[in-house]
Amino acid sequence: MSDTDSNTAYGRKSFQRSKSHFADRVTADARDGWPVEAGRYRLVVSRACPWAGRAVISRRLLGLEDALSLAIADPLQDDRSWRFTLDPDGRDPVLGIRFLSEAYDAREPGSPDYPGGVSVPALVDVPSGRLVTNDFQQITLDLATEWTELHREGAPDLYPARLRDEIDEVMQEVYEDVNNGVYRAGFATGQEEYETACERLFRRLELLSARLADRRYLVGDTITEADIRLFTTLVRFDAVYHGHFKCNRWKLTEDQVLWAYVRDLYQTPGFGDTVDFDHIKRHYYQVHTGINPTRIVPIGPDLSGWLTPHHREELGGRPFGDGTPPGPVPEGERVPAAGRP
Amino acid sequence: MSDTDSNTAYGRKSFQRSKSHFADRVTADARDGWPVEAGRYRLVVSRACPWAGRAVISRRLLGLEDALSLAIADPLQDDRSWRFTLDPDGRDPVLGIRFLSEAYDAREPGSPDYPGGVSVPALVDVPSGRLVTNDFQQITLDLATEWTELHREGAPDLYPARLRDEIDEVMQEVYEDVNNGVYRAGFATGQEEYETACERLFRRLELLSARLADRRYLVGDTITEADIRLFTTLVRFDAVYHGHFKCNRWKLTEDQVLWAYVRDLYQTPGFGDTVDFDHIKRHYYQVHTGINPTRIVPIGPDLSGWLTPHHREELGGRPFGDGTPPGPVPEGERVPAAGRP
Repeated sequence: MSDTDSNTAYGRKSFQRSKSHFADRVTADARDGWPVEAGRYRLVVSRACPWAGRAVISRRLLGLEDALSLAIADPLQDDRSWRFTLDPDGRDPVLGIRFLSEAYDAREPGSPDYPGGVSVPALVDVPSGRLVTNDFQQITLDLATEWTELHREGAPDLYPARLRDEIDEVMQEVYEDVNNGVYRAGFATGQEEYETACERLFRRLELLSARLADRRYLVGDTITEADIRLFTTLVRFDAVYHGHFKCNRWKLTEDQVLWAYVRDLYQTPGFGDTVDFDHIKRHYYQVHTGINPTRIVPIGPDLSGWLTPHHREELGGRPFGDGTPPGPVPEGERVPAAGRP
Repeated sequence: MSDTDSNTAYGRKSFQRSKSHFADRVTADARDGWPVEAGRYRLVVSRACPWAGRAVISRRLLGLEDALSLAIADPLQDDRSWRFTLDPDGRDPVLGIRFLSEAYDAREPGSPDYPGGVSVPALVDVPSGRLVTNDFQQITLDLATEWTELHREGAPDLYPARLRDEIDEVMQEVYEDVNNGVYRAGFATGQEEYETACERLFRRLELLSARLADRRYLVGDTITEADIRLFTTLVRFDAVYHGHFKCNRWKLTEDQVLWAYVRDLYQTPGFGDTVDFDHIKRHYYQVHTGINPTRIVPIGPDLSGWLTPHHREELGGRPFGDGTPPGPVPEGERVPAAGRP
């Protein structure tokens, strides 16, 4: 996500996640001046980042790969934040920029200190090179509900109208206690702040485990936005949050329900094929020098269990409802070893 | 153990454990001038320290509690190293000193920079207040073989003459790869150094797991010094080495054999009743600010499994050979919640 994920979070009384500063929406009716349009926008992400990971998964599930191109930043930011050092000559080949901050500058010239900093996911208008939005909470909802004319055939409804109240309620609890809870624990500067966050996190995980014991997905009987948002935190749990953020009451692999749930999603096309454990581990352990001064990246955990049978299909449920799974990952976007840790 | 366990290990090319500087031996024949004698020496330990933990366990198993008194240092050293801040007025009630370094100074006046620093376990001569030895490798062997006249009735033979070659060989491998290996990994200053140590550690743990799959103890069919030395590292593994030292390929609880082996020992009188997880966690996480600058102590791992059935008795073996288990822990030495995590 943003600079608040790095060292700048230190020195504050307690960890606070910044609101997204740029909250324009790309909609079917172009009410903010940004119409849904194939080929017009570029989605800038880091594969390390759970907030960006949501958008990468939604884009795959909805089949938006051709309509909305993808820029992948280096998992290691420098003092100018996210950069395109993985690309030839260190420039994003479509936007032609070296740092994501250049798109922010183009949007708001002369104001280099954006509240919340330079964050991913970011939608950038390709013709003008200007940032449209970095509103991580809204981007995926709009992909699901505003970009429908560009969805692939068989795309699932990730935010069904009749279930939105329940989805919103679950997502709010998951956001506070889990998605953001791990950061509150990891970036705590005092024992009490850490313990409060960690206790809340594990209490919520226990409730989620109970909820998921006899139902395959969080809401309804298909994959929804709520599952995507829980997945992006859970898939990182043992690899980084357990040790690096001290969320270590137990590993995810020790909770039979949650471990089966997250493996089920991981093995569903559109989830595991977006996950890059190498980017994830290097980002967290090498960027947060305030909690890992040596920048050493652990060799663990053993990832060989991700593809083992989860038996969640016995609970019923239809991952894509009346739709179908997404096709293969486009050439050029394949994660080395994704889906085969 | 010593100052080399704290921040002073940084800045070196790679982690090196100092040899004990004071290597006098307390023996039955007093060849170094130090005779075995009830009431004469004081064993200074930290319950946090695995090297000192060996001596605490041996003393219990051999029933030396009355003959050799115990001083327990605060798990948190300050810049003058181990201190008696847990005792009334911050002084050890028998030696009358505030810092263990005072016994070192009494031994070698005018030479405040002992190679290896001020370490536990330390044997101190009570009448003179002088340090006798801080030779962590030798102290327990001498308790087992030289202090025999003071052993309790039914004390086990922890270093049986006919098995010494095998015990020594196992202990050497365990020392290099496990006891000291976790420190090499945790105090590594570079990625390669860390990975080498961590790979060696887990390779050795796998070999040990295979060895212990069908035999209850490491050597012979009774508890020996080799088990004590492996135990003191394993009992700390998930609590501190897994996260803090990044030894995180798997938790000990994930290896069925080693997890059962260490629980078997933990539940044996003389082992678990010496273990203080509070001291262990606070020491590691609060003293090593070079790898944990926030000094936050994690709430995990869940310790409730330590007393669950291990079923190792099905492998046979006689923990104490022809001897008997030690009696209850002396009043005044009970660890809060020891044996009942």
